[in-house]
Amino acid sequence: MKRLAILGSTGSIGTSALDVVTAHADRLSIVGLAAGRSAAALGAQVARYQPSIAAIVSDDDVACVRAAAGSAKTRIVSGPHGLTEVATHPDVDMVLCASSGTAALEAVLAAINAGKAIALANKEVLVMAGEMVMRAAQKRGVAVLPVDSEHNAVHQCLHGREVSEIKRVILTASGGPFRTWSTSALDRARPEDALRHPTWQMGRKITIDSATLMNKGLEVIEAHWLFGVPADRIAVVVHPQSIVHSMVELTDGSTIAQLGVTDMRLPIQYAFSYPERWQAPLPALDLARAGTLEFMAPDVERFPCLALAYRALRQGGTAMVALNAANEIAVDAFLAGRLAFPAIARIIDATLAAHDVQRADTLEAVRESDRRARAHAAHLASSLELKV
Amino acid sequence: MKRLAILGSTGSIGTSALDVVTAHADRLSIVGLAAGRSAAALGAQVARYQPSIAAIVSDDDVACVRAAAGSAKTRIVSGPHGLTEVATHPDVDMVLCASSGTAALEAVLAAINAGKAIALANKEVLVMAGEMVMRAAQKRGVAVLPVDSEHNAVHQCLHGREVSEIKRVILTASGGPFRTWSTSALDRARPEDALRHPTWQMGRKITIDSATLMNKGLEVIEAHWLFGVPADRIAVVVHPQSIVHSMVELTDGSTIAQLGVTDMRLPIQYAFSYPERWQAPLPALDLARAGTLEFMAPDVERFPCLALAYRALRQGGTAMVALNAANEIAVDAFLAGRLAFPAIARIIDATLAAHDVQRADTLEAVRESDRRARAHAAHLASSLELKV
Repeated sequence: MKRLAILGSTGSIGTSALDVVTAHADRLSIVGLAAGRSAAALGAQVARYQPSIAAIVSDDDVACVRAAAGSAKTRIVSGPHGLTEVATHPDVDMVLCASSGTAALEAVLAAINAGKAIALANKEVLVMAGEMVMRAAQKRGVAVLPVDSEHNAVHQCLHGREVSEIKRVILTASGGPFRTWSTSALDRARPEDALRHPTWQMGRKITIDSATLMNKGLEVIEAHWLFGVPADRIAVVVHPQSIVHSMVELTDGSTIAQLGVTDMRLPIQYAFSYPERWQAPLPALDLARAGTLEFMAPDVERFPCLALAYRALRQGGTAMVALNAANEIAVDAFLAGRLAFPAIARIIDATLAAHDVQRADTLEAVRESDRRARAHAAHLASSLELKV
Repeated sequence: MKRLAILGSTGSIGTSALDVVTAHADRLSIVGLAAGRSAAALGAQVARYQPSIAAIVSDDDVACVRAAAGSAKTRIVSGPHGLTEVATHPDVDMVLCASSGTAALEAVLAAINAGKAIALANKEVLVMAGEMVMRAAQKRGVAVLPVDSEHNAVHQCLHGREVSEIKRVILTASGGPFRTWSTSALDRARPEDALRHPTWQMGRKITIDSATLMNKGLEVIEAHWLFGVPADRIAVVVHPQSIVHSMVELTDGSTIAQLGVTDMRLPIQYAFSYPERWQAPLPALDLARAGTLEFMAPDVERFPCLALAYRALRQGGTAMVALNAANEIAVDAFLAGRLAFPAIARIIDATLAAHDVQRADTLEAVRESDRRARAHAAHLASSLELKV
């Protein structure tokens, strides 16, 4: 029986994870759950899965969780350290981190230091603090299993192969909703144009990241930390059908790819079951039915965010923190209708250029760079604001 | 240093194997070479690689080999047991079997019993005697590494995964030169129509096997023996670009594929280097340049040979020997212009139907079934002969 804590249990990944737990109730159990603001939904999950502990961000929401939790004997915690309390509960074997932001980062570091295995579905953790996280995991001898579809695919392709056998990690990208748009059309692209993503149904922020290809840029950074491969050996290929989830090219030129239906329950189950592999109650991939798979090079002229992510990775240290922070600010402004689409990349570019790169080896250094980059990007965003 | 014997050294696979040896002269050496009729070519190889032993089929060719071998101190042997002498030479670590027919089968069994690892590029060995060969290899604890592009791909995809993790082995097929031909066009297909194969340059017999899909049928049988997977868990998908060399679908529905450029030196090097993986002096696969990969279900109405191979595999024992024998006779007759294309399948079908299936657990049983099926198929072929 593998005992789980799920951080971000009411989100898309969290509920998919609970589906996996339900499908494999003989092998998985829930010790802890944590959510941000969805108190009633968390309470209902507590009632169903009867965890030992559950966390909600705001003290004000505790009563609501309790009310929805029925007769569950679960301890309900709140406040800034609730996430960490759930992640480090002594009965937990593995923590699925599917919540976002720096609170998740603290919880993941604490869980690693407490010897918990990590299933990682949060981008910021590795983008902002990949060096710290992977060093702690290595020191403690705990596994960090990627749940993100692309990195999960790479993990499956490697299947224990040494880093020395890797020539290139090749991440596939759907190309996003603006893949076929011209530069002049991109100048006029609006948030609602992006929010119908071709293959994956996702949140608003990540949909824009998919449209700018920053999503893929952040994944390049994550791949660097997860698999120990330098920037020049991580490639991106656009593959609109999103059936090949990613690939690894080995030293002899042979390429191993992982393919599958697009359902997040598969990588989640893979992380929960690893090193075993269990049956999944999902339709198999039917390649003959899929018919055609296309591949093309990404266009960094139209989508400069991908190149910016490589630049930050090559700069190292807190440059990746600045990249992530500037991107969040710029995407927020774009989603609010205050910024033109091409200005997202311009703000990140200028923030990176102004950023004083430090080593990203303490949480404080990371937080400080994050604060400064956000302030800088926000200033740039307001100067670039669209006249409404 | 891995010390090699190459059976069939003057053929296409054999010369590619020697290219690999040349490229990795610090890690591979040649102890033995064996050829069928190409005496002068074998002699030149002997002069270059200076093996301890070399074999040629006919006693009459020994002088020619010796003359071309220059000052090499190689022992030249001939006759029916020459192949086995090379394969079992005490200095040999691994035998690459790239020669065809039952003589190769005897040599492979002898090499296994002498504890040599096997790199297998001969279809008949497993189709005719898969049970015997794999049982002997298991008993002796020696590896049988497939060099055939598809099975080599499956071996790479599995990378040590247990058979219990396999849901399906999925072999890709180019579809052959008649993939898009109608039934009525196939009625009139001639050997020269087939002999321009879309992706691989191959011999005449295997090109016709590719055109009938029998090639894939034989590979289904080989996959059964190599990977221990039953017929109903081996699938075939047509993939005209031949970039995905084959796939494995795992229990959770995830599919692992191996992709690469079409160059036999890659699977040969893989077998020679295994479990290591070395650099290869070949261009890498450029998927963005390849652009589009297509997949479709095979049409067993137009290409019944594929279904016949499954039938023989399900019947077991010597049914596969009969399938292979009838196919060789029918393809010979087609290549000689004596038979219509659809008659190939009809002869195999009728031979299988008439075959008295025995256990294929001795060389004698295999040989006897082979003889009977050939006689039966030859009789059918002459009765179906085209009036020229």
